[in-house]
Amino acid sequence: MTRILGVDPGLTRCGVGVIDTGRGRDVRFVAVDVVRSDTGEALEHRLRIIRDGLVELVDRLKPDVLAIERVFAQHNVRSVMGTAQVAGLALLIAADRGIPVTLHTPSEVKAAVTGYGRADKKQVTAMVQRILTLDAPPKPADAADALALAICHAWRGGDSPSGGETPAQRAWRDALNGSRS
Amino acid sequence: MTRILGVDPGLTRCGVGVIDTGRGRDVRFVAVDVVRSDTGEALEHRLRIIRDGLVELVDRLKPDVLAIERVFAQHNVRSVMGTAQVAGLALLIAADRGIPVTLHTPSEVKAAVTGYGRADKKQVTAMVQRILTLDAPPKPADAADALALAICHAWRGGDSPSGGETPAQRAWRDALNGSRS
Repeated sequence: MTRILGVDPGLTRCGVGVIDTGRGRDVRFVAVDVVRSDTGEALEHRLRIIRDGLVELVDRLKPDVLAIERVFAQHNVRSVMGTAQVAGLALLIAADRGIPVTLHTPSEVKAAVTGYGRADKKQVTAMVQRILTLDAPPKPADAADALALAICHAWRGGDSPSGGETPAQRAWRDALNGSRS
Repeated sequence: MTRILGVDPGLTRCGVGVIDTGRGRDVRFVAVDVVRSDTGEALEHRLRIIRDGLVELVDRLKPDVLAIERVFAQHNVRSVMGTAQVAGLALLIAADRGIPVTLHTPSEVKAAVTGYGRADKKQVTAMVQRILTLDAPPKPADAADALALAICHAWRGGDSPSGGETPAQRAWRDALNGSRS
């Protein structure tokens, strides 16, 4: 069993999703949370609040690995600097504790859980709920993205499918079939 | 007397320049250094190396205030994420120690030391040498920029909030916040 903590970095809302891997492709929900900082606070205090929140979650939930969303400078220029800084904090928290850490791009995450690299938030949320057999969609959306990151890490870290549908693609097809019936 | 530690953030080379303010516009050189991390290292280890280097300098030189160069997403897209992350670490080091911290834009720094917001590196270096009455230009250039930041802070004062907003920007942000609630 491996416990994976996914981080969807953000300065205003930083999503955290934790899963355990089971046998094969089995993944189990452990926890989901969002660490928030107030836009009215000074930047250095916001970073501190987010860092403290992440440290608390990491030390309490004791993940074996961290999976963090890779931030690109091209996307969302207004908020990208804060997002990059929060990703940096998460990387450093992992390094300080000797916890392995991996970055995944948004399209890798979407492709892993929905089979489609340009899936929208609704699809990602629906698949995360289905994959983790949750009674309701994880909320808010930041939380679903963090869980998707953790699932992405679990499945990309496993055996690469040699052909045909990936488990995610199969699950997505099943979900579509289910929604029709 | 106020001791100012300027940080020119960078993942490969992070410049640090320290000055003391005297009477009026008098400023005195204290120290200059560059904290480096190897491009071959994993990102999380590079962040750790830079953080450890900055912590050592801050705890040894005991500045009263930190002045950090403001990073813009538009500039140098290839390296901007690492630069933003290092700026975030420096902000956090200040916040953790209760040291006031201010961000200054590159053009503010250039204007403060050369009188011209679009001055080149050579002009900035020459003026830093002259202002601090150094026998030789501070080297490397990252070090000169960090000293220029500290001088800029000494002369401009710490009025600028770390958010670096103009009153108009602040009003706009407040309006946005208000409209969300």
